[in-house]
Amino acid sequence: METKKIEFLETYLSLYIDHQTVMAEMDKPDSAYVILDVRNAPAQIKQDQIKGAIALPAKDLAQQLDTLDKDKTYVVYDWTAGTTLGKMALFILLSAGFKAFELSSALEGWKGMHLPTEPVAQ
Amino acid sequence: METKKIEFLETYLSLYIDHQTVMAEMDKPDSAYVILDVRNAPAQIKQDQIKGAIALPAKDLAQQLDTLDKDKTYVVYDWTAGTTLGKMALFILLSAGFKAFELSSALEGWKGMHLPTEPVAQ
Amino acid sequence: METKKIEFLETYLSLYIDHQTVMAEMDKPDSAYVILDVRNAPAQIKQDQIKGAIALPAKDLAQQLDTLDKDKTYVVYDWTAGTTLGKMALFILLSAGFKAFELSSALEGWKGMHLPTEPVAQ
Repeated sequence: METKKIEFLETYLSLYIDHQTVMAEMDKPDSAYVILDVRNAPAQIKQDQIKGAIALPAKDLAQQLDTLDKDKTYVVYDWTAGTTLGKMALFILLSAGFKAFELSSALEGWKGMHLPTEPVAQ
Repeated sequence: METKKIEFLETYLSLYIDHQTVMAEMDKPDSAYVILDVRNAPAQIKQDQIKGAIALPAKDLAQQLDTLDKDKTYVVYDWTAGTTLGKMALFILLSAGFKAFELSSALEGWKGMHLPTEPVAQ
Repeated sequence: METKKIEFLETYLSLYIDHQTVMAEMDKPDSAYVILDVRNAPAQIKQDQIKGAIALPAKDLAQQLDTLDKDKTYVVYDWTAGTTLGKMALFILLSAGFKAFELSSALEGWKGMHLPTEPVAQ
């Protein structure tokens, strides 16, 4: 049973990227990372987002794959950790052959660590 | 590794149903969906619930299976996404041969989208 | 598909321990349980913790394994359910041969049930 648990955790953890890694990479001028805000909520509910993120709602992602770049690594996030939207976006991206991770702890964790955000264009 | 990730996400996502699907189905007069609030907390802590939900705490579920209907599809929810109670309820229901899903984003996401709730009977 | 779901849920649930079980065990004078607060945040952000928990940030855990005891059962927790830090800690502990679980619903759920906490030493 321990082996099963360890394998499960290994696969689970391989889906995620932590905010320190993302922050360090985003500061580089030629960053390969692109942050995607995949929340489906309208702008007035979202209010703010991670600084530099591109809004690409999970519900529209499958139809917008041709706007994405296979040389980039996509980092998707939803409101909080444990929701399904980020994993749905990740499933679509990985299945289409893109490099992608979900942001650990999502927007909630990013804000909790006082990392940079910006208002969402209304 | 990507195949392992994709399979993991596929199974994970197959456990869930989103609130739009639930809302659309609940509006039908002969809805096959039954929403189960599986929180173990007492009524004064729960305060409100999803409109039309039936309170069936996860801790009591295994003893109450004979009150459920195999023709229905059960949608279980806990306070927030990522907790274990919904998945425990889901495990009990699926193992007993019921059709069941966990509600994506749980009660927190439902309220965040301003979907209908009602006070819990005290 | 149902079998795959059930197996997935079984493994997922086997990673967790609920707060009732932890509380009951912690009250015993010779408790085998040790609660580890694996949050990486500094003390002024953490503010309080589960009563009796030992602060051992997930980022330091791999280097501190020799301070742990194979006769104990470690219960790790992060801020909220569904984050990755608890599962990262669990992965490190289980891979190193320790007995360990993640606390269901994390600190948020513990506080929501009004279970005992204490200030973090600043």
